[in-house]
Amino acid sequence: MNQQAHDSPELVKKAIHTIQMLAVDGVEKAKSGHPGTPMALAGIAFEIFTKHLRYDPQDPSWPGRDRFILSCGHASMLLYGMLHLAGYDLPMEQLKQFRQFGSKTPGHPESHLTAGVETTTGPLGQGIASAVGTAASIKMLGARFDDVASIATGRVFGIASDGDMMEGVSGEAGSLAAHLGLDNLIFFYDDNKITIDGKTELAFSEDVGRRYEAYGWHVQHIDGHDQEQIRKALDTAVSVTGKPKLIVARTHIGIGSPKQDSEKAHGEPLGEKDVEATKKAIGWPLEPTFFVPDEVREIFTRRAEEGKAAHAAWKKELEKLQKAGGEKAELYRKLMAHEVPENLLEELVKVVPTKEGATRAHSGAIEQRVAALVPSLVGGSADLNPSTKTLIEGSPAIGKGKFEGRNIHFGIREHAMGAFVNGLASSDGFIPFGSTFLIFSDYMRPAIRIAALTHLRSLFIFTHDSIYLGEDGPTHQPVEHLWALRLIPNVDVVRPCDALECAGAWAYAMQRKDGPTVLALTRQKVANIARAEGFDPKVMLRGAYTIADASDPTLVIVATGSEIEVAVAVKKILDGEGQRVRVVSALCWQQFEREDASYRDAVLPPGVRRVVIEAGVTYPWHAVVGEKGLVVGRDDFGASAPDKVLQKEFGFLPETVAARIRG
Amino acid sequence: MNQQAHDSPELVKKAIHTIQMLAVDGVEKAKSGHPGTPMALAGIAFEIFTKHLRYDPQDPSWPGRDRFILSCGHASMLLYGMLHLAGYDLPMEQLKQFRQFGSKTPGHPESHLTAGVETTTGPLGQGIASAVGTAASIKMLGARFDDVASIATGRVFGIASDGDMMEGVSGEAGSLAAHLGLDNLIFFYDDNKITIDGKTELAFSEDVGRRYEAYGWHVQHIDGHDQEQIRKALDTAVSVTGKPKLIVARTHIGIGSPKQDSEKAHGEPLGEKDVEATKKAIGWPLEPTFFVPDEVREIFTRRAEEGKAAHAAWKKELEKLQKAGGEKAELYRKLMAHEVPENLLEELVKVVPTKEGATRAHSGAIEQRVAALVPSLVGGSADLNPSTKTLIEGSPAIGKGKFEGRNIHFGIREHAMGAFVNGLASSDGFIPFGSTFLIFSDYMRPAIRIAALTHLRSLFIFTHDSIYLGEDGPTHQPVEHLWALRLIPNVDVVRPCDALECAGAWAYAMQRKDGPTVLALTRQKVANIARAEGFDPKVMLRGAYTIADASDPTLVIVATGSEIEVAVAVKKILDGEGQRVRVVSALCWQQFEREDASYRDAVLPPGVRRVVIEAGVTYPWHAVVGEKGLVVGRDDFGASAPDKVLQKEFGFLPETVAARIRG
Repeated sequence: MNQQAHDSPELVKKAIHTIQMLAVDGVEKAKSGHPGTPMALAGIAFEIFTKHLRYDPQDPSWPGRDRFILSCGHASMLLYGMLHLAGYDLPMEQLKQFRQFGSKTPGHPESHLTAGVETTTGPLGQGIASAVGTAASIKMLGARFDDVASIATGRVFGIASDGDMMEGVSGEAGSLAAHLGLDNLIFFYDDNKITIDGKTELAFSEDVGRRYEAYGWHVQHIDGHDQEQIRKALDTAVSVTGKPKLIVARTHIGIGSPKQDSEKAHGEPLGEKDVEATKKAIGWPLEPTFFVPDEVREIFTRRAEEGKAAHAAWKKELEKLQKAGGEKAELYRKLMAHEVPENLLEELVKVVPTKEGATRAHSGAIEQRVAALVPSLVGGSADLNPSTKTLIEGSPAIGKGKFEGRNIHFGIREHAMGAFVNGLASSDGFIPFGSTFLIFSDYMRPAIRIAALTHLRSLFIFTHDSIYLGEDGPTHQPVEHLWALRLIPNVDVVRPCDALECAGAWAYAMQRKDGPTVLALTRQKVANIARAEGFDPKVMLRGAYTIADASDPTLVIVATGSEIEVAVAVKKILDGEGQRVRVVSALCWQQFEREDASYRDAVLPPGVRRVVIEAGVTYPWHAVVGEKGLVVGRDDFGASAPDKVLQKEFGFLPETVAARIRG
Repeated sequence: MNQQAHDSPELVKKAIHTIQMLAVDGVEKAKSGHPGTPMALAGIAFEIFTKHLRYDPQDPSWPGRDRFILSCGHASMLLYGMLHLAGYDLPMEQLKQFRQFGSKTPGHPESHLTAGVETTTGPLGQGIASAVGTAASIKMLGARFDDVASIATGRVFGIASDGDMMEGVSGEAGSLAAHLGLDNLIFFYDDNKITIDGKTELAFSEDVGRRYEAYGWHVQHIDGHDQEQIRKALDTAVSVTGKPKLIVARTHIGIGSPKQDSEKAHGEPLGEKDVEATKKAIGWPLEPTFFVPDEVREIFTRRAEEGKAAHAAWKKELEKLQKAGGEKAELYRKLMAHEVPENLLEELVKVVPTKEGATRAHSGAIEQRVAALVPSLVGGSADLNPSTKTLIEGSPAIGKGKFEGRNIHFGIREHAMGAFVNGLASSDGFIPFGSTFLIFSDYMRPAIRIAALTHLRSLFIFTHDSIYLGEDGPTHQPVEHLWALRLIPNVDVVRPCDALECAGAWAYAMQRKDGPTVLALTRQKVANIARAEGFDPKVMLRGAYTIADASDPTLVIVATGSEIEVAVAVKKILDGEGQRVRVVSALCWQQFEREDASYRDAVLPPGVRRVVIEAGVTYPWHAVVGEKGLVVGRDDFGASAPDKVLQKEFGFLPETVAARIRG
C-alpha cells in the first residue's frame, strides 16, 4: 500500500499545506481554537493517512480497520481536516462550522458525534491511555479467531502532545502497554517544546524517550518536519514486533507562521495579519479560504481506493470464518453484536446464591453466569482481584503474546484501567469492566466521564462501598462517592442490597447500551431479604421498588445496598409500634427518576412521610424527603474500626434509626 | 550523628526484630492489617531513624526537622512502631489499639491525628507525591533566609511501594521533583515483587530505576535486607546534590515468616500458627507480645538525645535570625504563623476592580493584594497561568537551585499539583494554592480529599467553571463538578458572582484554617452587581446573603457565580409584573448551612417560594426548593459553541428563566 511513495515532494508539500491551511482557516473562522499544533503535525498526519492507515471512508466502523487517535484533542482541526480529505462524511460545510452549536466539529473530537473519530479526546492523557485498550482489544479479538481467519490485525496510530506525556494516566497506560507487548500501537510524541505557559522547560526536563524505553517501548527520534524521516520511522515502527512504539518527533508549533515556536500559536487564532503572512510565505491563495487543490484531493481519492481494497480483502477473511461456521462463527456474531440474552435476568435469578454474603461475593458468583452467557464480557481489576471478586473463572489473563483470555491484570493503575476499559468499549467485540474499591473511583473520574459523554458501554465495579469496609479507615472509606458518581450525567449507579439484587444489577448493567454503569458492592456480609409471594424480579430493573410493604403505609423508608437490612429491621420495630412502614430499595435511583410519574407515585405515595437511609453523604437525598425531612447517612469522614463498631458509633443501628424517626 | 555505627550487628538485628514483631503483634491483635511489608522494611526504617533522620520526639513539629513519609500507608504498623520506639507520644497502649475506634493508630496513617505522622497516606501515590511538595517547601523556606541563617535544611526520607510506583501521580511528581532538583528528597522503593493479586510480574515489568533516571533522579540498587548496603546507599544519597534520590531495595515481603514472598503476607494477619513459627525461628519470646528489649529502647533513647542536640543547634540559627531582626525576622514570624490580617476583607475591598470582567480576572487582581499582605501565599498553575490568572506578580518561579520565588510551574500534572500543594500545606510557612480549569478537578480529587480529611489549608483555584467556557466543548465544560466538590466533607466551594465577591472569596479562603477551599471562577465576563446603600461586605463571609432585595418577598431566587447576573435580570422582569423578588447570592453554600437558623431563615424566609439558578447539575438544589420546586441548571453535558449561544440554547436567558418561573 505504498503507491503514494511516487507523489512528488512538491505535491506532498502542497498536501501538507492544505492540511495546515484548513486548520488555520477553521480556527480563524471560529475565532477560537488551536492552529499551531495542526500546522506542526500536518506532515506526520499526512504520512500516517496516506501510507499506513487502513481505512474505508464508506464504512468508518469496518472492524478490520486501523485506528487513528489524536490524543492531543485540542488539535481537533487536524483530525477534522484529515477526515474531510480522507472522504469521511464530514463535508466542507462542517469544517466551516468548527466549534459552533450543533456541528460535527466541536472544540475537541467526540466519537459519538463524528464518523471517523475513534475516541473522545481533549482531557489530556485520555487518548493515548484509551488507545492502549483499543490496541489490546484488537489483539484480543484476533486471538479468538486466528486459527481460522485473520479478522483483526488492525494497528492503532496516534499522536500525543507534551501534555499527554506529563499526565500520569499516560504513564500508567504506557507501562501496561509495554507489559502486554502491544506492538500494534504506534504513537508519535509531538515534542514541540511549547505549552500554554511558555516553553516546556518551565516544568518539563525529563527524557521522555528514555522513560518509554524504561517502560519497554521501542523508541525513535526524528525531525517531525522531514517527510523522509517520518516515513522511515513509520516503516520501522510497523515492522518491529513485541513492543509498542514511540516516535519522538521534534516539531515547531505554528510552523511557517510569524508565531512559529511561540505559545501564542497554541490556543488562539493566528489573526488576519498573520494568516495572510503565512499564506503568502508558502505561496497559498488568500482566497478562497478552506482551499483544497484538486491534485491533493486526488491523493486521498486514490488512498480511499486502497482502503476499499483492503476492506475487500478483510471481507474474504471474514467469509472464511463464516464458511467454517460452527462455534467460531457464532462467537464472532455474538461478539460483534455485543449480544446479551434478552432473558438474562431470568437466567441470573436461577443462580442467585442463597447463603448470606457480601454483595461483592454474590456479584462475583453471578458474574460467572454472565460471562458464560455473554462472550463479550471481559475485564479485570486494578490489583484487587481477591477483594473485588471479579475474576472470570476458567479463562486465563491476557499477557504478552497471549490474548485469548478474558481477564486483565491492570496493576495498581486505576486511571489507566478506566481509559483502557473505554478503549475496549469503543472498539469491536467487547463489553468491558474494570474493578477496584469505590474510594478509588476518584482516581478514574476523568475516564468515567469520557465513557458517559461518549455513551460507552463501560462497566465499573466498585466494592468496599461504604464506611463498613471497616479497619482500613477513612482514607479508604467512601462517603461522598455514590452521589459524586450519580451526579455525572449518563452514569448509572447500581447498589444492590442482596444476592437477588446482584442478579438485577448485572442484568441492568449488561442491558444498558448508551452509557457506563457503576456497580457499588459491599465488603461486608449482608442478609438476603425475603421478598413477598409472587415477587417479580423484573421490577428491580425499574431502579426502585417496594421490597417490604405495608398496606396504606404511614412511612416510606428508601434505602440502598447494605442499608436495606437496617431499613427492614427498623420497619419491624416501628410496625410493632403501630406504624405501617414500607421499605423501598433504590438500587438505581437514576433509573427510578426516569420512570413515569404513575410508577414513581405508586412506589413513593405523595404525602406519605419519607426517610432515606444510605451510609454516605445526605444532602441530595433531602430532595427526596424534603428540606426538613430525615436522611440517615454519614456527612463526615469515616473511622478506622470494625464495621459493627462503626454501625453503632455512626448511628446506623436499627434502634437508633427508629429513635430518630420517632423524633 | 553516627554513634549507632557502633551498635553490634546482633543488637541491630534485635532492633529490627523488635520493629517487625511489633507490627506482627499489632496486626494479629487487630485481626486486620498488613504485616508483611513492615517486616520487610524494618531494616530500612531502622537505618533511616537511627542514622539520618533528625527528629526531636519532644517537639514533633520543630521546623528544622527531617521528615519521614511512609507512602505505602498500609504498612502503618511500621510507622507506629517506629514512632513509639523513637519516643513520640504514641504509648504502647495505642499500638495495642491498632485499627480500633478512637485510637491514634488507624488503618492508614492520618497526620491530623497522630504526632510524628507528617502526612496522611494510604491512597497509593499520594505520599510520595506530597513528599515532593514537602521537600520543595523546605527549600523555599530556606531560600528566604539563607543569607542570614540556616533555618531550613531538612530532608524528606520516605518509602514507596510497587503500588506507589504504578500510580500515575507518582510519575507526575517524580518528573517535577527532578525538574526542581530536589536533592533533599530521598526515597526507598520497596521492590518486593508481590502485590495483592500475586506477583508484580502479572502487570508490572518496567524498569523502575531506569524510569527514574529518565526523570532525572539519582538511582541506586541494593539488597533491602543487607544493613551494610542500606547504610552505604543512604550515605551516598544524602551526599549527592542536585537530584532527588531513589534507592531501589529488593526486599522479601513477610521475611522470616512461613508466608515470606507470598501475597498472603500482604493484607491479612499471619495467623497464630505462623506468628509462633516466625518468632521461634528468630528466637523471639512468644510472651509477652509487643515485646521491646531494654537494649533496643536504649538505641532510640540515645538517638532522641542526638535529635535534641540537633534541635538546639537549629535554635541557635533561629536566634541568629531573630537577633538580626528587621524584615527577615518579621517575615519568619509571619510565615510560621501563617499570618493573615484580620482585616483582610477590608483591605481587599479597597482594591476591587470596578470594570466588569471575568471573575478569574478579578480574582487574579485581588490575589496580588493578598500576596502583598500574606507572605505565606505561594502557588501556581498546571500550565494554565495565562488562563487561570494566578501568577503572583513581582516574584519569580521556583526552579532548580532557585527557591526564593512564590510561583510554581506544575506542568500539565493536575494530580501531582494537588499532592504537591498538600505537601506544602502540611509543612511550615506556606499557604499554598494550585490552579487549573474546574473540569480538571476530576484529575486531582484524591489529593483534594486528602486535604479535606487532614484539615490542610490547601487552596484550589478552578476557573472556566461552567458550560460558559464555550467553544472548547463538553470535554472541558464542568456541569457536575461544583456539587461533586461540595459533597466531599470539609471542602468549601466558593463561587463568587462579581469583583466584590472575589474579594469576599479570597478573604474567606485565606481565613479558613481547618480545611481546603475551592474557588470557582468564570472564564467569561460578568457584570458587577450594584449593592444596596450601606451594604456590609462582611455578610459575604456568611456564605449566602441577600444581594438584591424586595420588601416582603413573594419569591426568592438563589443563585451563584455567573448566574447572579441572570437572577438580577429575572428579578427586574418579574418585579415589573408585580412580583417582589429577592435575589440571594450563595457564594459558599456550605458555610451558609453552618450559620444559625435565625440567619438562614432571615435570608430564606420559610414559606416563600424559592428558585435556584446555577449552570450545573440540579439534583442537590432540590433539597432547597423542595421536590417539585424549580431549579434552573444543566443536567446534561454542555456543547461546543460561543457562550452567548449556549446561554440561549440551554435556557439561561433571563426571559426564558422568567417564563419557567411563571410556570
